[in-house]
Amino acid sequence: MPGEAIDRPNPAPKPSHLPDLVDQLLVKFEKTNLDHGASSALSKYRRAACYVAAAMIFLQDNVLLKRDIKVEDIKPRLLGHWGTCPGLILVYSHLNYLIKQKNLDMLYVVGPGHGAPALLASLWLEGSLGKFYPEYSKDKDGLHNLISTFSTSAGLPSHINAETPGAIHEGGELGYALSVSFGAVMDHPDLIVTCVVGDGEAESGPTATSWHAIKYLDPAESGAVLPILHLNGFKISERTIFGCMDNKELVCLFTGYGYQVRIVEDIDDIDNDMHSAFSWAIGEIHKIQKAARSGKPIFKPRWPMIILRTPKGWSGPKELHGQFIEGSFHSHQVPLPNAKNDDEERQALQKWLSSYKPEELFTDAGDIIDEIKFTIPTDDKKLGMRPEVYKGYIAPDLPDWRQFCVEKGDQFSAMKAIGKFIDQVFVQNKHSVRLFSPDELESNKLSDALQHTGRNFQWDEFSNAKGGRVIEVLSEHLCQGFLQGYTLTGRVGIFPSYESFLGIIHTMMVQYAKFAKPRKPPGEGMSAASTTSRPVPGPDRSTMASAIRTPRSLAQSST
Amino acid sequence: MPGEAIDRPNPAPKPSHLPDLVDQLLVKFEKTNLDHGASSALSKYRRAACYVAAAMIFLQDNVLLKRDIKVEDIKPRLLGHWGTCPGLILVYSHLNYLIKQKNLDMLYVVGPGHGAPALLASLWLEGSLGKFYPEYSKDKDGLHNLISTFSTSAGLPSHINAETPGAIHEGGELGYALSVSFGAVMDHPDLIVTCVVGDGEAESGPTATSWHAIKYLDPAESGAVLPILHLNGFKISERTIFGCMDNKELVCLFTGYGYQVRIVEDIDDIDNDMHSAFSWAIGEIHKIQKAARSGKPIFKPRWPMIILRTPKGWSGPKELHGQFIEGSFHSHQVPLPNAKNDDEERQALQKWLSSYKPEELFTDAGDIIDEIKFTIPTDDKKLGMRPEVYKGYIAPDLPDWRQFCVEKGDQFSAMKAIGKFIDQVFVQNKHSVRLFSPDELESNKLSDALQHTGRNFQWDEFSNAKGGRVIEVLSEHLCQGFLQGYTLTGRVGIFPSYESFLGIIHTMMVQYAKFAKPRKPPGEGMSAASTTSRPVPGPDRSTMASAIRTPRSLAQSST
Ligand SMILES: Cc1ncc(C[n+]2csc(CCOP(=O)(O)OP(=O)(O)O)c2C)c(N)n1
Ligand SMILES: Cc1ncc(C[n+]2csc(CCOP(=O)(O)OP(=O)(O)O)c2C)c(N)n1
Repeated sequence: MPGEAIDRPNPAPKPSHLPDLVDQLLVKFEKTNLDHGASSALSKYRRAACYVAAAMIFLQDNVLLKRDIKVEDIKPRLLGHWGTCPGLILVYSHLNYLIKQKNLDMLYVVGPGHGAPALLASLWLEGSLGKFYPEYSKDKDGLHNLISTFSTSAGLPSHINAETPGAIHEGGELGYALSVSFGAVMDHPDLIVTCVVGDGEAESGPTATSWHAIKYLDPAESGAVLPILHLNGFKISERTIFGCMDNKELVCLFTGYGYQVRIVEDIDDIDNDMHSAFSWAIGEIHKIQKAARSGKPIFKPRWPMIILRTPKGWSGPKELHGQFIEGSFHSHQVPLPNAKNDDEERQALQKWLSSYKPEELFTDAGDIIDEIKFTIPTDDKKLGMRPEVYKGYIAPDLPDWRQFCVEKGDQFSAMKAIGKFIDQVFVQNKHSVRLFSPDELESNKLSDALQHTGRNFQWDEFSNAKGGRVIEVLSEHLCQGFLQGYTLTGRVGIFPSYESFLGIIHTMMVQYAKFAKPRKPPGEGMSAASTTSRPVPGPDRSTMASAIRTPRSLAQSST
Repeated sequence: MPGEAIDRPNPAPKPSHLPDLVDQLLVKFEKTNLDHGASSALSKYRRAACYVAAAMIFLQDNVLLKRDIKVEDIKPRLLGHWGTCPGLILVYSHLNYLIKQKNLDMLYVVGPGHGAPALLASLWLEGSLGKFYPEYSKDKDGLHNLISTFSTSAGLPSHINAETPGAIHEGGELGYALSVSFGAVMDHPDLIVTCVVGDGEAESGPTATSWHAIKYLDPAESGAVLPILHLNGFKISERTIFGCMDNKELVCLFTGYGYQVRIVEDIDDIDNDMHSAFSWAIGEIHKIQKAARSGKPIFKPRWPMIILRTPKGWSGPKELHGQFIEGSFHSHQVPLPNAKNDDEERQALQKWLSSYKPEELFTDAGDIIDEIKFTIPTDDKKLGMRPEVYKGYIAPDLPDWRQFCVEKGDQFSAMKAIGKFIDQVFVQNKHSVRLFSPDELESNKLSDALQHTGRNFQWDEFSNAKGGRVIEVLSEHLCQGFLQGYTLTGRVGIFPSYESFLGIIHTMMVQYAKFAKPRKPPGEGMSAASTTSRPVPGPDRSTMASAIRTPRSLAQSST
C-alpha cells in the first residue's frame, strides 16, 4: 500500500450523514449574468495573469512566447508555487471589477503567500509594480525583467513579503492571514479586506479560531472582512480536511461560527457565480454597517463569507507521465519539474503556456490590451496602491508620563501605574489605539485601562456596540494577528501578556519583524518591544507595536 | 464606562438569528432517572470533593471544620482556582459511576489544569493519592496534610502536573488538552479518554482545530475521546465566546465539525441529565467501534460530544461586598481573597464550607463514608491508577541501521535514507509507532516512509479504514499534541518538521519537557530530540519522542 492511490483528478468530498434540512442554511439566489463585455474582459484578464504567473516560474527568455520554447528559455532552477495561483487570480480579477463598479476601498490579504506569482502578475498588470519598481514597467522590458528574474537572486521572491505592493502579510508561516485582516479593518470604517484562506492553512489552529473574529468587530466604527475559504482540495501532498467536507458539513460549521455561507463552485460559469457572490456579500456588509451606523445595530449580525471550490492548479497541465497534475497535489509547486531537460515536459509547457494565447492579450509593446484594462480600477483604488498600506504612521497623542509617578519610597504597583497611563492614552486617542489581551488584563493589574472605555466583545450584551478599546480573547494568536493588522495599517496596538506565554507567538513576531524593521526608540512611559517601519517603496511609514511582558512571578501566581 | 457592568449572575447567551430548524440538530432524548441510592451517593461524593477542594484553597488547620473557622485556621497566602472545580468534580463523579457500571477503561484529561484542587480532592477520595503518596493517606492525617500544605512549598502544586496520578497533561498553557487526548487513544482500542475543555481554553487556536481530530481516528484500531465543552461562561475576567453562543450556534458549529451534540444544562436535575448524556455517549462510541471492528465501518461517523453549562464557581459564595461571586468571573480564583483578615469574608467562608455538611460525609477517622465509596471503581479501573499512564515504555523493535547506509563517496539524500529506515520501523512495529507531520512528508523527502503503510485520514475515501501509520495535518499544534498523548502513554512518535516552523510549538515542548525528563540516549539511526521518562510515582516508565528537524535550506525551498 504505497500511500494512497487517488484514481481521478479533483475528487469530490464523500457525503456526510447530516440531515437534508441543513441544506436550507446555504445562501441561495439566482446568479445574475455579467454583460458580455465584462465577462470577456475578466476572462482575458485571467488568461493574461495566469500566463504571466506560470511564465515566471519557468522562463528566463522568450517571455511572450514569440517562438517555441527552447531549452535555453527555461530557468536552470525552477522555483515557485503554481497550484494556488489560478484561484488567487480569479479573486483578484473580480475584486478589481467590483471595486470599479461599486467604488470600494479594499485590501487583498492572501493566506497562501507562496502564491506570489499570482499577486505579482496582477500587480504588474495593473501597473502598481511598475510604479514602485521602474524595472518592472508595463512594457516588454518590464515584463521580461519580472518573468526572467523571479525567484532568482536578481528578482522578486517566491513569497509575498514587505516589498510586495499592497501587502500587509508575510507569506511563509501559514495561519494568520484572517486575524491580520480583522486587525486591519478595525477603526477603518470604510475599508473592506478580502482575505483568501487556503484549505490547508484552514487546518491550522490560529486560522480555526480566527473565524470567531467577527465577534470582536463593531460595525459602527470598523470596516469589514470578507473571507474566502479556497478549497482546491490539496495541500503540499495530501487532501485537506475542508476539501473532504461536504457542503452540509461546511455550511453547518461556518453558520455556527456566525456566518452566512455562499458556495461558489460552478466551474463552467465561474464568472457569473463569483460576481453574484461578491455582489451579495458587499450588499450584506453594507446592510450590517448601515444598521449599526444609524443607531440600530443588529445583535449577532451574520456576516457573509464565500467558499470557493476550484481544481488545484486549474488551467495547468492535465497529466504527466501518467499522473494527474491539474486537480492533484502534483500541481502544488512546479507542475513540470523537469521541463528544462525532459522533452515531454518541455512540450507540455509549450502547450500549457500557449493555451492562454498570449498573442491575443499583449500588445506589441508588451503592455496588456485595452479590453483587459477595462476591468482595472483607477490608481487610488488599486489593490497595490492603497494608502492604508503606505501612509505614514501617525504618532499617538501621549500624556505627560510624570503625572503617573509616585513618590520615591512609596509602594505602588508598576502595572497599576501603567494601567492608569494607558487609560489616559485611550482618552486622548479615541480611534487609533487599541489593546489586545489574552484575558490577562485583570490578572496583570491593568484594569484601570478600562476606566473610560470598555471591552469590545459584540456577542456579549453588556459590551456590545459600545466602541470599547480593549479586546480580551483567550488566544495569543488572535491578539498578535489583530495587533499586526492594526499596526501595519498605521495605528498603535498594545499586547500585554505573561512572559511565559508570549513564546506561543514568537514565530509570528519573527514574521512580523521580517515585515518591519526597527526604527525609533519606544514611546515614553511604556516598555515597547518594537517601534517599526517598513522598507516598502512609497511614502514614509512606520508603525508602533508594544508588547508589555509581565514578570514571571506575577505570571505564575495568576495563571 | 468602567469596563462592563453585568447586572446578574450567570447571564444566559442572547439569541442568535439562526433559523429554528437548527434545533433539530440537537441530540434529544428523555433523561432516565438514576435510582435513589446512586443519586444520593453521587451528590454526597460531590459535596465531599467540593468541600475538600475549597478547604485546600483556604485552610491550614481545622480541616474538618470541627469548630468555627478562626484567623489562624486560614493560610497566610491564598492560592488556587475555585471557579472551574465544581464542574470538574461533577464530571469526575459521573465518570467513576459510569466506569463501575459499564466496566470501562478510562482516562480523564482536564484542560483547565489550574483546577488541580478538584482533581486532587477526587484522587484523595478514591485513594489514588494515598497509594502514591503515603502522606496523603485516607484518614485524618492524610486529609490534614493534603489541605494544609496545598499550594505551599511543602505540598502539592496549584496546577496539574506530572506528579498528579492519572495525569498525562500539564496544567498551565491552555489549548492542548483535546489533541493530547486523541494522541492517547490512538492504538489503544479499549481506552476512552474523557476530556474537559474550558470555554476560555476553547477560544485558543490549538483547541479550535483540535475538534477536527476525530477525522484522524480509525475506530477499528483506536479508542475514543469523549469531549466535554464546559461552559461556565467566564474566563479570568471576561465572558467567553462559547458562553455567549446560544444553543443554535453551538449545535451548528459542532455538528459542522462532525459531532452529535448533547447539551447538559438542567442544573436542578443535573445528575440525571449528566448520567443520561454519558450513557448515550458511551452507547454511540460503542456503535461506531463495533461497526468498524466488524468490517463495516461507518464513513464519517458522528462521534458524540457533550456541552455542559454550569455557573462558574457553582455552590460557592453567592455575593460579597455587593458583587456576584457564583456565576461570575469573581469566582475564577480565590472567591474570598481577604478571608483571613476580613470578618465578613471569614464568615462567608464559614457559611460556604459548612454548607457541604462535612460532618455527614467524613467518618471520625477522617475517611469518607461508605455511601460515597459506592460510586468509586475498583483499583485497576480508577482514574488515578490507569496502567496506560504508568506502565513502562516498550522500546520499538528497531532494524539494523547499517542496511540503510550508502557507500562512502556516493551521493544520496540523508532524508531519503531516513524515510527508508522509518518504513522498516513501521513494518516491524505495526501498532506502536506513528508519524505526525504538518503536511511536510513529501517536501522533507520522507515519502518512502509510506512504502508499506498509508495516511490515516478518515474523511478521505482513499485512506479511510486502512490503519495508516502517518497523519499529515497542517497544524503543528495538532501534531505535537498527538505526539504528546501518544508517547506519554508509552509509545513512540516521530514529528518531522521544518526547522523554521518547529518554533510554533516550542512552548508546548517546554510544557512537555516539564512533564517528562531526559533519561536515555535516542534510539539508533535517527536524530531524536528527546527520550524521556516521567518522575511519576509508580512503575518504571519512559517514552520516546523524536523530532526530526530539517535543515533551513530545505525548508526554504519547499515552503
Ligand atoms: C505553519 C506552516 N506549516 C507548514 C508550512 C509548509 N507549507 C507550505 S504551503 C503548504 C500547503 C498549503 O496548502 P493551502 O493552504 O491549501 O494552500 P494552496 O493549496 O492554495 O497552495 C504547507 C504545508 C507552512 N508554510 N506553514
Ligand atoms: C495559552 C494561555 N493563555 C493564557 C492563560 C492564562 N489563564 C489561566 S486560566 C485562564 C482562563 C481559563 O478559562 P477557562 O478555560 O474557561 O477555564 P475555567 O473558567 O473553567 O477556569 C487564563 C486566560 C493560560 N493559562 N494559557
